[in-house]
Amino acid sequence: MIPESFLKKEAEHFTGFTPEVFWVTQAGENKLSERLAIRPTSETIVNDAYSKWVRSWRDLPLLINVWNSVLRAEITATRPFLRTTEFLWQEGHTVHATKEDADQEVMRILGFYRDLIEQQLAVPVLTGYKSEREKFVGAIYTTTLEAMMPDGKAIQMGTSHNLGQNFSKPFEIKYLGKDEQSHYAWTTSWGVSWRLLSALIMLHGDDKGLIVPPHIAPIQVVIVPIYFKDREKGSISKKIREVAETLRKIGLRVHVDDREEYTPGWKFNEWELKGIPLRVEVGPRDIERKQVTLVRRDNLERLNVFDLVLVEEVRKNLEVIQTNLFEKASLALKAGIRQAESYEEFKKIIETYGGFVRACWCGNSDCEDAIKTDLGATIRTLPFQDEVTFAACVKCGRPSVNVGYFARSY
Amino acid sequence: MIPESFLKKEAEHFTGFTPEVFWVTQAGENKLSERLAIRPTSETIVNDAYSKWVRSWRDLPLLINVWNSVLRAEITATRPFLRTTEFLWQEGHTVHATKEDADQEVMRILGFYRDLIEQQLAVPVLTGYKSEREKFVGAIYTTTLEAMMPDGKAIQMGTSHNLGQNFSKPFEIKYLGKDEQSHYAWTTSWGVSWRLLSALIMLHGDDKGLIVPPHIAPIQVVIVPIYFKDREKGSISKKIREVAETLRKIGLRVHVDDREEYTPGWKFNEWELKGIPLRVEVGPRDIERKQVTLVRRDNLERLNVFDLVLVEEVRKNLEVIQTNLFEKASLALKAGIRQAESYEEFKKIIETYGGFVRACWCGNSDCEDAIKTDLGATIRTLPFQDEVTFAACVKCGRPSVNVGYFARSY
Repeated sequence: MIPESFLKKEAEHFTGFTPEVFWVTQAGENKLSERLAIRPTSETIVNDAYSKWVRSWRDLPLLINVWNSVLRAEITATRPFLRTTEFLWQEGHTVHATKEDADQEVMRILGFYRDLIEQQLAVPVLTGYKSEREKFVGAIYTTTLEAMMPDGKAIQMGTSHNLGQNFSKPFEIKYLGKDEQSHYAWTTSWGVSWRLLSALIMLHGDDKGLIVPPHIAPIQVVIVPIYFKDREKGSISKKIREVAETLRKIGLRVHVDDREEYTPGWKFNEWELKGIPLRVEVGPRDIERKQVTLVRRDNLERLNVFDLVLVEEVRKNLEVIQTNLFEKASLALKAGIRQAESYEEFKKIIETYGGFVRACWCGNSDCEDAIKTDLGATIRTLPFQDEVTFAACVKCGRPSVNVGYFARSY
Repeated sequence: MIPESFLKKEAEHFTGFTPEVFWVTQAGENKLSERLAIRPTSETIVNDAYSKWVRSWRDLPLLINVWNSVLRAEITATRPFLRTTEFLWQEGHTVHATKEDADQEVMRILGFYRDLIEQQLAVPVLTGYKSEREKFVGAIYTTTLEAMMPDGKAIQMGTSHNLGQNFSKPFEIKYLGKDEQSHYAWTTSWGVSWRLLSALIMLHGDDKGLIVPPHIAPIQVVIVPIYFKDREKGSISKKIREVAETLRKIGLRVHVDDREEYTPGWKFNEWELKGIPLRVEVGPRDIERKQVTLVRRDNLERLNVFDLVLVEEVRKNLEVIQTNLFEKASLALKAGIRQAESYEEFKKIIETYGGFVRACWCGNSDCEDAIKTDLGATIRTLPFQDEVTFAACVKCGRPSVNVGYFARSY
């Protein structure tokens, strides 16, 4: 809980979060003398602590990362993992001596997030700045990672903010520099939430269920025995145990599904629903031929693999699935970016295809507001490297200063 | 957050927790139509879920364990780990088909807690029932583990409750039995909190700082090199690396403190403050004699140990420290239990020594209340095996029915 006076210290931050804060006003039978906000984000608490911890340039940089849940009053309908009153996230907070150090940290973290999201979750993203209107309240600028879902809506995967001295000044985070003078510090904050899971589910899943990228799958390989007669059981059981052991030895996460109360077909469906990347089937014919049957979850392709090359083939196929998921999604992302030179085109793209609209913008938030009101689309990101403008502002026709990527979003 | 209507479903539970619940009454600018309680404990949420999950006897028993933080409005002064508005704990909730199954679960968990507290934390406890007055609100009975601190105050280390059908009835947790009839289930709940750490700190610590029992010490052995001349550094560095490697190989948690900016004496103080059970010093004389010097944190005893028997000696000493801490505390616990046959004696013991007063009680909560008001002492526990009463009720002089262990407490 955050005392209201804390939350108020950074005026813009307070105004931004007030509409979605839950207020505790009473403890037992007693009315509280000061309202307490249930944490919507931790900047104000963390910065209060930092003001006590930071004394000298030797204390900097300072980083605290917390995994917690935060609450925001959602007026719109909730959706699991995507928009819920309480959500689990990770938020990091740093203090630096200079703006340059803070800038570097913001980009370093954005890079970590990009690696996590693209290399592990196989979700390709656009990165860039948020506009003034869309930035984090209290930040001097916000950087973002934006993915595109199959229904044409964008999803914000994570953000990393330079908070400038906006928090260090009201919270009095000061340090004694090498110059023996007192300076206000520079702070950053950044976070990703379980929303990452919603993107993974929507982007990779199909009508059979989840498809979990091998790098992060809690079970990477599931082994299912197929017996027709009781006398086959011994040799098949022995082989699946050996296969499991071999694959665990090379560090894979393997599950053996030897439940007797379910048929192989039922198990196949269940593990496909759960999105396990690779299934190994072992039946009587596989024993005879000294092979196993591999089934890829991403395209349901079946492969007969000789025991001798099992390790290599399993390893290779897991990597192929990981790459395939990312490449398919990357193609979709590219195909989902369409350029608009006029508002007519913009409108047609948003209403017909969705996806990202690449359009020029005058930099004025009135135009952003109008587009949001008209079409429900916002600037998802402004590229880090300024892209050459190719038209007038898509909304007002005045000279443009930015190329922006607009979309409807979750 | 728990809607007020949920919390109200079990009347005694609601009445018990209401005085210490934080109420959310507002979201943003809007007054909520129903107040939301910040969770003081999760019975009402968990039991609501159980009512949806439990259908048949096949679904039972059912166990959910959660690690979370809960909030209770504390009117008294807060103390770190001991009494704080928000605290971290573990709470488990189970559903059973019969009272007997629930009884067994309550005792099974109490046994786990006892093992954890006595074997790992080296804190000896008394176990038994709580009185009606002191039991968990909504339970049919509560079992408890009670430790004694050096200042003569008791501390409740954990509790395990049989909730009977008090929650299953209002929450409609019903199952279809083997008899094809519908039955209300029986539920339990149980928990320990970071309060365990406060007991560990108070009980084992001394004027030099913490003493952490070896079984749970994050660092069990710290190795500190002692060089006087630069030319000694090579051989000492080599030896401390070897010692560390040897000890890690047998599964110990080892830290090498080779910081050059601090003296050995400064390091000794720091690691004693942090309570690391065993220190290994390696100086030039240790190299010469093919030995190391061990220093025990619990009694600061120094031992010269030949390299050849290093592993055995380190292992043995860690176990000796663990046992020593527990035995010292057990003697103190025993010595801290004093018997009172009259209220005069009771009063004298509480005011002179503190500790547990073993006294007879008529079973009437008026007497409990009076003792609490007079002397600030409560019944910490009633033994599982009825102990033979040896006097009239210590407060009212009527015939006694129980022997109780009374104490002031945190």
